[in-house]
Amino acid sequence: MPYFDFNATTPLHPAAFAAWRETTEQAWQNPSSPYRAAARAHALLEDARERLATLLGGDAEDYVFTSGATEANNAVFTHFARSAPATARVIVSAIEHPCVLEAAETWFPGRVTRLACNEQGVVRLEALDEALRTGGAAVVSLMAANNETGVLQPWREAQALCRARGAPFHCDAAQWLGKLPAETLADCDFLTGCAHKFGGPKGVGFLKVAASYAGFRGQRGGEQEHGRRGGTEDVPGIRTLVAALEAIAPRLAPEQAVWTEARARFEAGLANAVPDAVVVGADAPRLWNTTMFLAPRHENLRWVAALDRRGCQVSTGSACATGHDGPSHVLAALGVSPDAARRAVRVSAGWDTTPTEWQTLIEALREVWSDLEKEENNAGLVD
Amino acid sequence: MPYFDFNATTPLHPAAFAAWRETTEQAWQNPSSPYRAAARAHALLEDARERLATLLGGDAEDYVFTSGATEANNAVFTHFARSAPATARVIVSAIEHPCVLEAAETWFPGRVTRLACNEQGVVRLEALDEALRTGGAAVVSLMAANNETGVLQPWREAQALCRARGAPFHCDAAQWLGKLPAETLADCDFLTGCAHKFGGPKGVGFLKVAASYAGFRGQRGGEQEHGRRGGTEDVPGIRTLVAALEAIAPRLAPEQAVWTEARARFEAGLANAVPDAVVVGADAPRLWNTTMFLAPRHENLRWVAALDRRGCQVSTGSACATGHDGPSHVLAALGVSPDAARRAVRVSAGWDTTPTEWQTLIEALREVWSDLEKEENNAGLVD
Repeated sequence: MPYFDFNATTPLHPAAFAAWRETTEQAWQNPSSPYRAAARAHALLEDARERLATLLGGDAEDYVFTSGATEANNAVFTHFARSAPATARVIVSAIEHPCVLEAAETWFPGRVTRLACNEQGVVRLEALDEALRTGGAAVVSLMAANNETGVLQPWREAQALCRARGAPFHCDAAQWLGKLPAETLADCDFLTGCAHKFGGPKGVGFLKVAASYAGFRGQRGGEQEHGRRGGTEDVPGIRTLVAALEAIAPRLAPEQAVWTEARARFEAGLANAVPDAVVVGADAPRLWNTTMFLAPRHENLRWVAALDRRGCQVSTGSACATGHDGPSHVLAALGVSPDAARRAVRVSAGWDTTPTEWQTLIEALREVWSDLEKEENNAGLVD
Repeated sequence: MPYFDFNATTPLHPAAFAAWRETTEQAWQNPSSPYRAAARAHALLEDARERLATLLGGDAEDYVFTSGATEANNAVFTHFARSAPATARVIVSAIEHPCVLEAAETWFPGRVTRLACNEQGVVRLEALDEALRTGGAAVVSLMAANNETGVLQPWREAQALCRARGAPFHCDAAQWLGKLPAETLADCDFLTGCAHKFGGPKGVGFLKVAASYAGFRGQRGGEQEHGRRGGTEDVPGIRTLVAALEAIAPRLAPEQAVWTEARARFEAGLANAVPDAVVVGADAPRLWNTTMFLAPRHENLRWVAALDRRGCQVSTGSACATGHDGPSHVLAALGVSPDAARRAVRVSAGWDTTPTEWQTLIEALREVWSDLEKEENNAGLVD
């Protein structure tokens, strides 16, 4: 069954599954306990940290394992809420993940500057530059790639601007890592990653904290994670995260062109199957796996359900927004009308999505479009 | 190899392992995604919540899955830090887990009342009563059973006192759940549990939040966990937690007498093997699996290392305290001198610890005591 919701979550990579089983069987001890088997578990934990640093850059000790991107992103704002002056502001892009936006509003109520983006979904650096000029920013948060549109953000430039202005810079790279080479992401003061977006298990992620933020502490408790996060480390989960990223990382540079080409063929097919469908951020640099389009007619939940019946799993946007009323805040920031936003369908492929699966999706879209139009016409006749 | 550190962590129960594999293979989708396979994952998540409520009592919707006890305990204090008046105090026992004590001090700096305990390690209800009389308590936190000594705490009475005084009551039951029947723990306003203490996986726990605390939100993000905790739910981990507790729960009432008797035989053997060893809280009601004793001589790390070489894994106290300097805050609260506290050894058994394993530990203790005494005497001669 063609699965096109990799931005929501991924199945566990076989190498990751093997790592979980092995660690669960052989290194289940508490890594903080004082005997040799526990010391082995601790060594395996630190080995995982070293391997993550090898993959992404920077020092192993800077990586703090968390329960996922949501905890990591929350921890950044909680940290600055406690350490920054009471009048400090935070600067976030308008298209950040809800866990950044809500954490910012929770801990800096009324003191959140939201950066606008252009109609392609790229955050405007001029807006950041202007916001930084007024000073007093406790932290700036900009994602590496947007989860809904796949549009890449100017995090390198934002990081440079922040460095020049002395503002801490946080980058939520949950959607970038495992899809594109990590490049210099580890140079960011704070960097968030999430295992279940790249073939790892749910419930594990990390926050890289630059060594200069020595006072950083996430959740309180014991001295785990080099004193930066209390709580018994999930050594099996952590090693599984690293195994997943190690399995994927070597493919990213060599296969990117093939993956991008497959998505381009899909978008050509989409234009033919659903005339007047508009791909969001089509002219912006995007993740190779993501196509968000606005259908010309019919609510996205009808598209999703009909595609599901035809064997294709796609999404309406962010899974975490389910339960929220109202259309996507990301599309609103792009200037998409609420009406059009309710016709947004997100397609996000994986590393092993086949040309046949892409073609299946095109044909399903063609049929669903035809069916929905017929239903609508019939409903009109009955009325 | 006899393992006597179950209070630090437990190996994964086979039933739990099966649940993890099955859910990881069959319900790995994001439970918030909008197609049928994701809806199945969501149904399995809610099924787990229902089953947990069946095991522990209360309404399923009150259970919020977390990444463990540390997150759950932190969330209680973060919640009240945001919702209580700026002058509000919190009341905690002096023997709480570090994640309660540190979260309290972090979010209520200078406004933490620590309740004393008696020399057996039982928190004094009179101290709670007195602290409540002054009013203004945002929350009261008392653990169900202490992780170092195993001593049971008067949480039922504390809960009744808090109810009478209108103070929210939180009970960290991480060590109780899975070892003793849950009884009326679910009546507490806030209740913490942790999977890896009862045969479940690391990185999963829960916080039960009474329905009357409608404004409660843990980490910010999406509308997951009925709006009470953002972040993609770790459905495999959650179902594994529940499978572990279901596997253990039916044994708790029928086997408790046998387990308690086995520990009593061990303590008789200990008295014979290591004369003058003092069992902490010997006269208090204790978890059936825990014996913390103060050795008559020699630092606990020497005992632990020597027992490890003889095949027995025991602990010096709380695993989470590793990395901390200084002796246990729990023993200090009992009036144990720093010198004596550095001779504390914690033995914590499991559900399937055999009489042979207990006997192996007794013999190992006898030999280690003899060896350490000889070493000391020889060292004395050499000096």
